[in-house]
Amino acid sequence: MRLATLRTDEGTRAARREEGFYAVLPHASVGALLSSDDWLQAAAAEETGRVAVAEADFAPVVPHPNKIICLGLNYATHIKEMGRDTPRYPTLFAKYDGALIGAHDPVVLPVVSDTVDWEAELAVVIGRSARHVAESEALEYVAGYTVANDVTVREYQRRTREFLAGKTFEATTPLGPELVTADEFGGREPDLEILCEVDGEVMQRSRTSDLLFGVPDIVAYVSGIITLLPGDVILTGTPGGVGDGRDPKVYLAPGQVLRTVIECLGETRNRCLRESGV
Amino acid sequence: MRLATLRTDEGTRAARREEGFYAVLPHASVGALLSSDDWLQAAAAEETGRVAVAEADFAPVVPHPNKIICLGLNYATHIKEMGRDTPRYPTLFAKYDGALIGAHDPVVLPVVSDTVDWEAELAVVIGRSARHVAESEALEYVAGYTVANDVTVREYQRRTREFLAGKTFEATTPLGPELVTADEFGGREPDLEILCEVDGEVMQRSRTSDLLFGVPDIVAYVSGIITLLPGDVILTGTPGGVGDGRDPKVYLAPGQVLRTVIECLGETRNRCLRESGV
Repeated sequence: MRLATLRTDEGTRAARREEGFYAVLPHASVGALLSSDDWLQAAAAEETGRVAVAEADFAPVVPHPNKIICLGLNYATHIKEMGRDTPRYPTLFAKYDGALIGAHDPVVLPVVSDTVDWEAELAVVIGRSARHVAESEALEYVAGYTVANDVTVREYQRRTREFLAGKTFEATTPLGPELVTADEFGGREPDLEILCEVDGEVMQRSRTSDLLFGVPDIVAYVSGIITLLPGDVILTGTPGGVGDGRDPKVYLAPGQVLRTVIECLGETRNRCLRESGV
Repeated sequence: MRLATLRTDEGTRAARREEGFYAVLPHASVGALLSSDDWLQAAAAEETGRVAVAEADFAPVVPHPNKIICLGLNYATHIKEMGRDTPRYPTLFAKYDGALIGAHDPVVLPVVSDTVDWEAELAVVIGRSARHVAESEALEYVAGYTVANDVTVREYQRRTREFLAGKTFEATTPLGPELVTADEFGGREPDLEILCEVDGEVMQRSRTSDLLFGVPDIVAYVSGIITLLPGDVILTGTPGGVGDGRDPKVYLAPGQVLRTVIECLGETRNRCLRESGV
């Protein structure tokens, strides 16, 4: 199953992908849908309307997660290019929902810094409350997967010892277009090609199976700290190939198109736009 | 004005402190109240019921902030005891709302680590949306202040280079009991004694005016990164005297009472309880 959150004249709505159209559901978002008692059944319900796929206006697939949990340093290639040691535990940091944008929305480049960089990532969306979950059962708490780009303002990331400031700039993080359940790619754990392009040039290319800490491990670990809730989003980290790891360093510029693709899950395509009115 | 979020038979409700009682308001929480168009007027409205102060059951004063933004290393005395350099920029990290507890709720000590430490903090609650706000105007966006303790699992804080994991354990962070507007202490910026006691022994004692980055500076800085929303909570950092900075190190134990006091704002008093059922 493939689910999206669409902007409609009545506000955002959850929608189920069908052949050539989205079947609009009564829930205000995929997040609201996942919070319903039996979300798989609710998602399969009869539609209240239809939107042609070509006319879909995508909100972030979960617009307001209770938590956005991000992993740093979770692909060997990225750890190497950033000059870090291989971590023994998942490196966790947060992002606020004001950072999220839809699959085709502009990435807003802040006026305060020109060091905006890409980080293509597999995102996990939680389907039911998880607390102290064993790794062997962790995937049962996952609703599905989507595409994200953990766009980062490197200068702010490095200003202090904490990543947060560089990771949560307003309107910088594409999330979507669809939440895709595991049956769509015939596997419980995603082993999918992940790709990031800037103006058509491939910058990152890897496989989601190269994660240092895999999805079950991450879900189990986080659930030992705090309760994961339906709609929570986990960004699993980025592979090598970021602009900041290059010589010379390369950053995003206004007008460029950032494309993030994960095999079978879909793609986000976002034009970079200089922040205005400041 | 003093506002609290009380647990009632009908769920949580915002309430205004009166002489000897709380005047219950129709809003589900102080967070919901702050999101209303003219919250000061809404807060002054006639009550729908009364709760005696002695019978008040405090939820976190804002139970579900859109954002909890925390500062590290914001008092010279704490920077010294943790062996860090004085930072040029505010060190920001996050906490999820599942970490919050009410003013008299138990602090849950997780089974995974015995290194749970106290951090008494002044908390700022945002009253209206703030984006690219100048330092000189930042206090106009603050609704008021409350007491927090950024209880920290040191072992998890230090497992990786990011603080988050150690800062967001379930049910560890008292926030409350009341949001207090600045007119209650006769100043725009709080210059108040802050105190932390464990079983009656004073562990931290400082003044909120000793903050390295003051409230206007923090609000302005964060608003340059992302929009602050009504009900957002900023924990401004802790002064010296944490258990981890002592020789030998001291941590919280089951049964101990953690008391956090800020002059004029009030106090939280939380018994430490070992997590059960894991």
